[in-house]
Amino acid sequence: MTLATLSVKQLVDSYQWRYAVKRFDPSKQIDAATWSAIEKSLVLTPSSFGLQPWKFFVISSPENKAKLSAISWNQSQPSDCSHMVVLTARKTVDEAYVDSFLAKTAMQRNVSVESLVGYRVVVLGFLKNAMGRHLAWSSNQAYIALGQLLASAAMLGVDACPMEGIAVAEYDKLLGLFGSEYTTIVGCALGYRHSDDHYASLPKVRFDACELVTHL
Amino acid sequence: MTLATLSVKQLVDSYQWRYAVKRFDPSKQIDAATWSAIEKSLVLTPSSFGLQPWKFFVISSPENKAKLSAISWNQSQPSDCSHMVVLTARKTVDEAYVDSFLAKTAMQRNVSVESLVGYRVVVLGFLKNAMGRHLAWSSNQAYIALGQLLASAAMLGVDACPMEGIAVAEYDKLLGLFGSEYTTIVGCALGYRHSDDHYASLPKVRFDACELVTHL
Repeated sequence: MTLATLSVKQLVDSYQWRYAVKRFDPSKQIDAATWSAIEKSLVLTPSSFGLQPWKFFVISSPENKAKLSAISWNQSQPSDCSHMVVLTARKTVDEAYVDSFLAKTAMQRNVSVESLVGYRVVVLGFLKNAMGRHLAWSSNQAYIALGQLLASAAMLGVDACPMEGIAVAEYDKLLGLFGSEYTTIVGCALGYRHSDDHYASLPKVRFDACELVTHL
Repeated sequence: MTLATLSVKQLVDSYQWRYAVKRFDPSKQIDAATWSAIEKSLVLTPSSFGLQPWKFFVISSPENKAKLSAISWNQSQPSDCSHMVVLTARKTVDEAYVDSFLAKTAMQRNVSVESLVGYRVVVLGFLKNAMGRHLAWSSNQAYIALGQLLASAAMLGVDACPMEGIAVAEYDKLLGLFGSEYTTIVGCALGYRHSDDHYASLPKVRFDACELVTHL
């Protein structure tokens, strides 16, 4: 496959263009083809061991988006955006889950489950060592998905606002996650900036590259 | 600014093309312009409150790359790749750090530090509530940077291998982080796949979209 790559200028311009939207234009919706690519970007996110310890919720109905704003300190982003994504992660990763992943691997790679036994031992060994810290690990994985999601949106010219510090228990309730293996980690509103969002024109604040990057 | 966006097909093709490289081609180096864009992608990564609680180490000298392989269970990726990035995060985020960020904000936005006092109160309130969990939070932020890094590399046609579970204490020692506010979180080797890396041709394993994505 020959890959059509982005120029370095396009990449950096896209990251300069993005910002955390404060006010979305509620009249602008993400079209179906673009949304489909964003969902594929979520599903294709890399994860440790390939385990994908997450589920993604996409909220686009006006009723449910309004409910999300109500449990997000009435911030307008969930209700005014086009699509809200809530990234959730597994609280524990158990043997049954690993086996469901290995079954999927065997099927998609057309190999036997038995041939994956070495990998199974490595993964289960890692999970045993990480006992009590599974959610911290799966939360980190969900943030890879958030990073890839924000990058994908920027590349497609779609605006976004990552939303941390949301009310986990209320989100879990709304998403029907009580009693499940998953819990809310972080949200991301996606859509298009309102022409009146003055945050769009503020200079981006970053430490200097020489403060953040060390070459060895 | 008119943004030159990527087509949805290019985006998805890039994510299909990428995989976790097992064997890099040591004869292929990332050129300076491409590397510069990748570093900009790191620096421009979004973070909670914009706090950027991280430092990035770029290891490209053969001697130091070999040292990294030696403390990475002799995996070949650090020594054979072109550039190895180690993402580190702050162990605590204190008032002095927040003030250094606000000073940077004031300078880059040409406003007074005093005008940012409301934001200061919100950020310090968040950090007080998160006392004892700063590293978990800053680790999550570092994983946003990892996600954006992996996406950026894919968009530019650069191969990568994220490396979790590395020996933190040994990495911290090599990077000179002992006694500092930062600690190693995760690594990422970048370069170009070896033509003999058979992992490149394996089908990508993902749960079905209907298993991972719920629409509400």
